[in-house]
Amino acid sequence: MPVVSITLLPGYGSETEGRLVQRVALATRSVIAAPAAGTTVFVEHASTYMRDSRVFSGGGPSLPEASKVVRDFLGRMQDRDLAAARDCLAPGFEMVFPGGAHMTQLEQLVEWARGRYRSVAKDYERFDESWGDGVTVVYCSGTLRGTWPDGQVFQGIRFIDRFEVADGKLRRQDVWNDLAEARPA
Amino acid sequence: MPVVSITLLPGYGSETEGRLVQRVALATRSVIAAPAAGTTVFVEHASTYMRDSRVFSGGGPSLPEASKVVRDFLGRMQDRDLAAARDCLAPGFEMVFPGGAHMTQLEQLVEWARGRYRSVAKDYERFDESWGDGVTVVYCSGTLRGTWPDGQVFQGIRFIDRFEVADGKLRRQDVWNDLAEARPA
Amino acid sequence: MPVVSITLLPGYGSETEGRLVQRVALATRSVIAAPAAGTTVFVEHASTYMRDSRVFSGGGPSLPEASKVVRDFLGRMQDRDLAAARDCLAPGFEMVFPGGAHMTQLEQLVEWARGRYRSVAKDYERFDESWGDGVTVVYCSGTLRGTWPDGQVFQGIRFIDRFEVADGKLRRQDVWNDLAEARPA
Amino acid sequence: MPVVSITLLPGYGSETEGRLVQRVALATRSVIAAPAAGTTVFVEHASTYMRDSRVFSGGGPSLPEASKVVRDFLGRMQDRDLAAARDCLAPGFEMVFPGGAHMTQLEQLVEWARGRYRSVAKDYERFDESWGDGVTVVYCSGTLRGTWPDGQVFQGIRFIDRFEVADGKLRRQDVWNDLAEARPA
Amino acid sequence: MPVVSITLLPGYGSETEGRLVQRVALATRSVIAAPAAGTTVFVEHASTYMRDSRVFSGGGPSLPEASKVVRDFLGRMQDRDLAAARDCLAPGFEMVFPGGAHMTQLEQLVEWARGRYRSVAKDYERFDESWGDGVTVVYCSGTLRGTWPDGQVFQGIRFIDRFEVADGKLRRQDVWNDLAEARPA
Amino acid sequence: MPVVSITLLPGYGSETEGRLVQRVALATRSVIAAPAAGTTVFVEHASTYMRDSRVFSGGGPSLPEASKVVRDFLGRMQDRDLAAARDCLAPGFEMVFPGGAHMTQLEQLVEWARGRYRSVAKDYERFDESWGDGVTVVYCSGTLRGTWPDGQVFQGIRFIDRFEVADGKLRRQDVWNDLAEARPA
Repeated sequence: MPVVSITLLPGYGSETEGRLVQRVALATRSVIAAPAAGTTVFVEHASTYMRDSRVFSGGGPSLPEASKVVRDFLGRMQDRDLAAARDCLAPGFEMVFPGGAHMTQLEQLVEWARGRYRSVAKDYERFDESWGDGVTVVYCSGTLRGTWPDGQVFQGIRFIDRFEVADGKLRRQDVWNDLAEARPA
Repeated sequence: MPVVSITLLPGYGSETEGRLVQRVALATRSVIAAPAAGTTVFVEHASTYMRDSRVFSGGGPSLPEASKVVRDFLGRMQDRDLAAARDCLAPGFEMVFPGGAHMTQLEQLVEWARGRYRSVAKDYERFDESWGDGVTVVYCSGTLRGTWPDGQVFQGIRFIDRFEVADGKLRRQDVWNDLAEARPA
Repeated sequence: MPVVSITLLPGYGSETEGRLVQRVALATRSVIAAPAAGTTVFVEHASTYMRDSRVFSGGGPSLPEASKVVRDFLGRMQDRDLAAARDCLAPGFEMVFPGGAHMTQLEQLVEWARGRYRSVAKDYERFDESWGDGVTVVYCSGTLRGTWPDGQVFQGIRFIDRFEVADGKLRRQDVWNDLAEARPA
Repeated sequence: MPVVSITLLPGYGSETEGRLVQRVALATRSVIAAPAAGTTVFVEHASTYMRDSRVFSGGGPSLPEASKVVRDFLGRMQDRDLAAARDCLAPGFEMVFPGGAHMTQLEQLVEWARGRYRSVAKDYERFDESWGDGVTVVYCSGTLRGTWPDGQVFQGIRFIDRFEVADGKLRRQDVWNDLAEARPA
Repeated sequence: MPVVSITLLPGYGSETEGRLVQRVALATRSVIAAPAAGTTVFVEHASTYMRDSRVFSGGGPSLPEASKVVRDFLGRMQDRDLAAARDCLAPGFEMVFPGGAHMTQLEQLVEWARGRYRSVAKDYERFDESWGDGVTVVYCSGTLRGTWPDGQVFQGIRFIDRFEVADGKLRRQDVWNDLAEARPA
Repeated sequence: MPVVSITLLPGYGSETEGRLVQRVALATRSVIAAPAAGTTVFVEHASTYMRDSRVFSGGGPSLPEASKVVRDFLGRMQDRDLAAARDCLAPGFEMVFPGGAHMTQLEQLVEWARGRYRSVAKDYERFDESWGDGVTVVYCSGTLRGTWPDGQVFQGIRFIDRFEVADGKLRRQDVWNDLAEARPA
């Protein structure tokens, strides 16, 4: 065991249902030491559903994969396409960068970074998602490569970003990295 | 909807089953925009279960909460009780600290830290768990307070730790923080 | 809780399934003090069903709403369309009216009423259904208005009708009202 | 078909669960023309249940059978044990008797009845329950027997009572009967 | 898939439920080419069960394993304990032996065999059960060894027995073997 | 009870699902003395299914009815259409005939039979299937009729065949009959 049956109203695509059974299996196996081979999850469709005295004709929409929202945002930022990146943000978005730099506008970030490096790119090693109540937290970490203000290149500098994603939009970004460790004196 | 039924062999306690339904609900709602009020998860017990031609008399053990394993480890490290902290580690444990400092023994870490601060303590703001295939990744972040080697105190310095927890033991720790940003010149 | 799953062969329309989940929820909540918000009922479809060694290809037909059958009958009677009203009746239909007047033919009723009022109409306050084994009992109550034999009008006189409905036809009608209380001396 | 599965938290007795499956079967068969032989209803127990992010350790209480509450009330009234009868009433209880006599106190009823009959008793022919949202309506009908104010006895006089029962208490009683039809001039 | 859930009233032992899930898995896999690893069968307990308007407090008894009934019978016959063997027989038991010898009494069989061999014993190679409607057919086959009437020994002579078992008793036995092929002239 | 729910991926036809529910009911009733009227089996469709970390888009194929494979083979042999009969055989097919005659080629059988009868045909009385792990054993029995080598006819001679069928092909045939009992001296 376990055997998990998820009853949904029809209308979700197979990608959504596939993602759902995968995640429910992982959540289950985070609590019980069940081998993958012994973990069965399936989706069944209800044809009619009532809760709270109301009959529902369809379920809530599927949510985009939060990691994908983050990847899109990071790609647009790396391309310095601020307008497109801004589409990924929820109202009230805020960022905290190394040293506790608190910002709310992408332009502020561009300005802030100017003094720290001439250019930077991320090599991702991992994305992790933490599924919370109304929010998914996405962590991505890996290494930075780029050019210092003095023109020297750097690479392999560790970083980690934490994003809060709700309803497919970024609510908050927190960034840590080793640039200050590595920065030329 | 959704309505999720989890069939288990009996023998898990109510804490385990309670944790299970909570997590399965979060995993479900990370894929489908279902309100908490419309998300029902329950556990039923099978009295007999067969898979792969074998009849099982009990399920796999419940797993400890990975965040709790991490909290225990961090508490023991803060108390500098290395022997107790070592009990939290899986064979092959490795750590990577700011600047890419790679270590495998807790004593190495103590030594390494000596040149960086006289003492340090963590104020946690959040713990997040990411449930993976055979491993749970725990992130904790918050701020550091302590004393620099020169005796000056510091506080409010951002940090984040990433832990890989498998079978209740720590497999790997990665640490980022802003100490280098804040370090007195 | 409770969570109620109803497995049906497909082929019922959404009106029928919607009525079914509503009624099953009410029946459940008549026994257990569950709030509506905590009562979940859904319909799933079986693709193949066997009972008593027979494989069934379809379920029994849906039944008309008994209250609606009663409303139709009462409307036709009020319009004095006896032929149409008669279509609502099961073989062996019988009526009992105030004073214990027992009749089997709608014409008898018309005749009997002639001495009691010149005309009458019903203002409904409530319809209640009681679901029994092979029969639904429908109660409707409210007030009567009309004209006495002497031409004086009346209104607000309380009445209640009880109907037994089986297979969509009326098997029996029992009537009580306050006409005798109100009748001019 | 249909096959109905009701999942409950444990703790209800077998009388309650027995009543539940009976009623759910009747509600189901009021919508679909399924024979009793083809209607299967069973109760399963959940060992853990979560809805609306809360884990519940027990279900709502079972409700008393509304018809039984009514029978108790009627028996106490017939015995003129007003104190005991009053225990059956919800706050705000009201009664409407033939002729539209509206009362709220049992003493008012005793007074009102004094002018109409010296004594009365009910012979019940049927009790019907109609299960509504937060209220069960109970109908009982049959015949009255008793003694007129002038000492003459009567019997076989039709009556019907309608009761609204919520949370095991009577909220309202409506009474119709043929006493005025039968009353000696 | 498939995932098979069997809902039973409690009270069967784990041997019975274990046998049940094994057989249901085999029946399933006789129709669908599902690997054993992908075939999940489990038993859940209903706490209350209603069918045909009746609430059942317990299920039908478990049946003995038909193969075991046959083995017991054959062992008793081999021991020539006719009284004990007779306990395995249903009323109306009949046997058909090679050459179409039809008998109803175990004593007849002993008499009939006398002319054919002095003694015989069975080495079983296989037991197969065929599950039918109210009857399980058990086949056992293997080889015979024993002594001819003339005192010569024989062995390795093929045989097959077919038994009809209903309610734990033998209704019929049919026997085929190669004794006639091997019989000394 | 019992109530058996079989969850499958869609795509099997109604013949397959009908066969499945019939067999699962028989397997169930071979263990528990449940009347046919009290045995409910139905098939539900999963829309998405995951086991062993894989999401499956379809189930394994349905298997042909093993008895039918046997009937086809026997018909083709009776017609002496060896090529068509050979299509029914799995690689490594083997036969054992009365007297222990072991053969692997249908031509061997034809040759072997030549000395025993001029012609033979089977009148079937019963087919039984025994569902095993990866193999279904089919038994058919009845009587033989035909012509002895000397031209005399025979009939009513008992026979039984045992076949092992895997993946729709015959793996093994074992034959017993009373020809040696009946053979003219």
